[in-house]
Amino acid sequence: MMTAQTATTKRLGAQTIRFQGKPVIISTASVVGPKEGQGPLSADFDVIKPDTHFGQASWEHAETAMMYEAAGIAAGKCGLGLQELDLMLAGDLLNQTLASSFAARQIYIPFLGLYGACSTLAESMTLASVFIDGGYASRVLAAVSSHHDSAERQYRYPTEFGAQRVPSAQWTVTGAGAAIIAAQGEGPVIASATIGKVVDFGIKDSNDMGSAMAPAAAQTILQHLKDTGSPADAYDLVVTGDLAEVGNKILLKLLSEAGLNLGNRLDDCGLMIFDRQTQNVKSGGSGCGCSAVVFCGHLNSRLLSGELGRILLVCTGALLSPTSYQQGDTIPCIAHAVCIESSASGKGGRGGTST
Amino acid sequence: MMTAQTATTKRLGAQTIRFQGKPVIISTASVVGPKEGQGPLSADFDVIKPDTHFGQASWEHAETAMMYEAAGIAAGKCGLGLQELDLMLAGDLLNQTLASSFAARQIYIPFLGLYGACSTLAESMTLASVFIDGGYASRVLAAVSSHHDSAERQYRYPTEFGAQRVPSAQWTVTGAGAAIIAAQGEGPVIASATIGKVVDFGIKDSNDMGSAMAPAAAQTILQHLKDTGSPADAYDLVVTGDLAEVGNKILLKLLSEAGLNLGNRLDDCGLMIFDRQTQNVKSGGSGCGCSAVVFCGHLNSRLLSGELGRILLVCTGALLSPTSYQQGDTIPCIAHAVCIESSASGKGGRGGTST
Repeated sequence: MMTAQTATTKRLGAQTIRFQGKPVIISTASVVGPKEGQGPLSADFDVIKPDTHFGQASWEHAETAMMYEAAGIAAGKCGLGLQELDLMLAGDLLNQTLASSFAARQIYIPFLGLYGACSTLAESMTLASVFIDGGYASRVLAAVSSHHDSAERQYRYPTEFGAQRVPSAQWTVTGAGAAIIAAQGEGPVIASATIGKVVDFGIKDSNDMGSAMAPAAAQTILQHLKDTGSPADAYDLVVTGDLAEVGNKILLKLLSEAGLNLGNRLDDCGLMIFDRQTQNVKSGGSGCGCSAVVFCGHLNSRLLSGELGRILLVCTGALLSPTSYQQGDTIPCIAHAVCIESSASGKGGRGGTST
Repeated sequence: MMTAQTATTKRLGAQTIRFQGKPVIISTASVVGPKEGQGPLSADFDVIKPDTHFGQASWEHAETAMMYEAAGIAAGKCGLGLQELDLMLAGDLLNQTLASSFAARQIYIPFLGLYGACSTLAESMTLASVFIDGGYASRVLAAVSSHHDSAERQYRYPTEFGAQRVPSAQWTVTGAGAAIIAAQGEGPVIASATIGKVVDFGIKDSNDMGSAMAPAAAQTILQHLKDTGSPADAYDLVVTGDLAEVGNKILLKLLSEAGLNLGNRLDDCGLMIFDRQTQNVKSGGSGCGCSAVVFCGHLNSRLLSGELGRILLVCTGALLSPTSYQQGDTIPCIAHAVCIESSASGKGGRGGTST
């Protein structure tokens, strides 16, 4: 709860902060594996790898290499070297966020490690915006990755085991996204961010993350609209991280029960990245690389072109671990939302956060 | 590297930020296990548990309960409920930072999860200060925990196995520390923070974390003094997170080679928390709970009394995982430093960051 005596216009309501300096996303990059490269968004990715090893000795090393490559491409696109960035904010799904720490070792700039499961992209963009808007940094790298095979063997079964997958299961995306957020430059701007609370509706099934995460997404979306005083049509697109088919349906129902009907302005990165009819991904995509590459590869392009004027990117994270699952705990979930506006002429600024 | 065109007085040199608003540590709390309660700092902890289960069904649940209790005590000390805090920044050593996520579920305020291994306290205090100083929050909870038994079985061997410990090994502290950092109030203030880079000198032995982390601590300390233009005697105490005996000796040597002699103004939380002669902890204490309870329990009291005028708290983290160890990787390490000044009369403001 924001306390009244020090309220400023930087803070809107209970969970939302507004960036008056409008931090700019000056560059993004996405690197994905072969399966993601065969999906509907293939044209939007910077690099599609032919296999999931990327010439590395392990999947964990491959994931590290993927994050490092995405960061380098993002920096290169705006004519910068990685050493010219002030700060790296990064996270992934591996135990001890291995991929991020090892990528940070190569990049060798000030680094803060994050863990938000699949909410990590929005967490990193929120923190980057705070650093930029507050004047504590001028260029920040936000980087996020997941790798299907490194995640599968850590969270579920050895991939060689060939465990049968249930219809509610999601396919962890092999992909890394990197965004460079700056005080000055051209690109979509980050107008506000809503920091989520941990929500737990009692789901215990680690093969049904969508159901577990949907209530957290609903809470954050509703709180964001309340905090900013935005109407339901303030956004061209409200896009959740990776609820996939099962979770997306539950989110629609929860929002509807709260009186909010986003209609076809609601979509989900886990639904967008794969063709569920042909790619055998069950409910859809997941993993923090999912929202990372869908945003850095696909959505940012549409913001740059002006096709999208304003979006609310709502990254959802299931904060379980194999240990908590084995101990019979329910799954705590979180969702962080970032409002991103196109700076292309004639778009952006439609309703919303301008109070 | 901080870029020249947007340099402000909030940024000092390559890695350091200065907090003009001087965020205040209005409250801290510490909860520890029985072994820590038998050590030299026992009088400074708020709660000493009689066993390591705390009435919970697992050590992971015990760790969660410990973090939640520390947070509640810290809030209570300044007359606040946990719901009156704007933001929780927390991390721990468990896979997927389980203790933090589950504690955040109970606290139910906006939450951002961090992973910095044993550097997490300084990471959380740095980020809290950015939120406070920038005007994005008025009261932030920084919370950090580790638990000897949950860590031991995750990182090394089942505790029942009774593996022999080598002299360079460190004993993971069972403890949780919580600090409430605010825009207004009474208490020590956070003047500046230096965000570390990942440093890796090629150490592979996960039973010798002190050797691995010492170079990161040296880099951050030297960079902090350079960035702030501080002389060697600017601090009453430069206290590293948990280098313990082996790492502390290496740090002394590295600093000496760089021309810096801190003499008896250099100490280490891993050396302070246990009596190595009688408590069989080998090189000393470790775990992110180590610096958390030494700061929240011991050092903060000495800042409050004015016994310490200004300290540099340098939390060191070894960013390895059992997977990286098994794959033969070396250990990437990081150290973040926070400059904390007493607000007690006649102390603080001795040399240093006032440029």
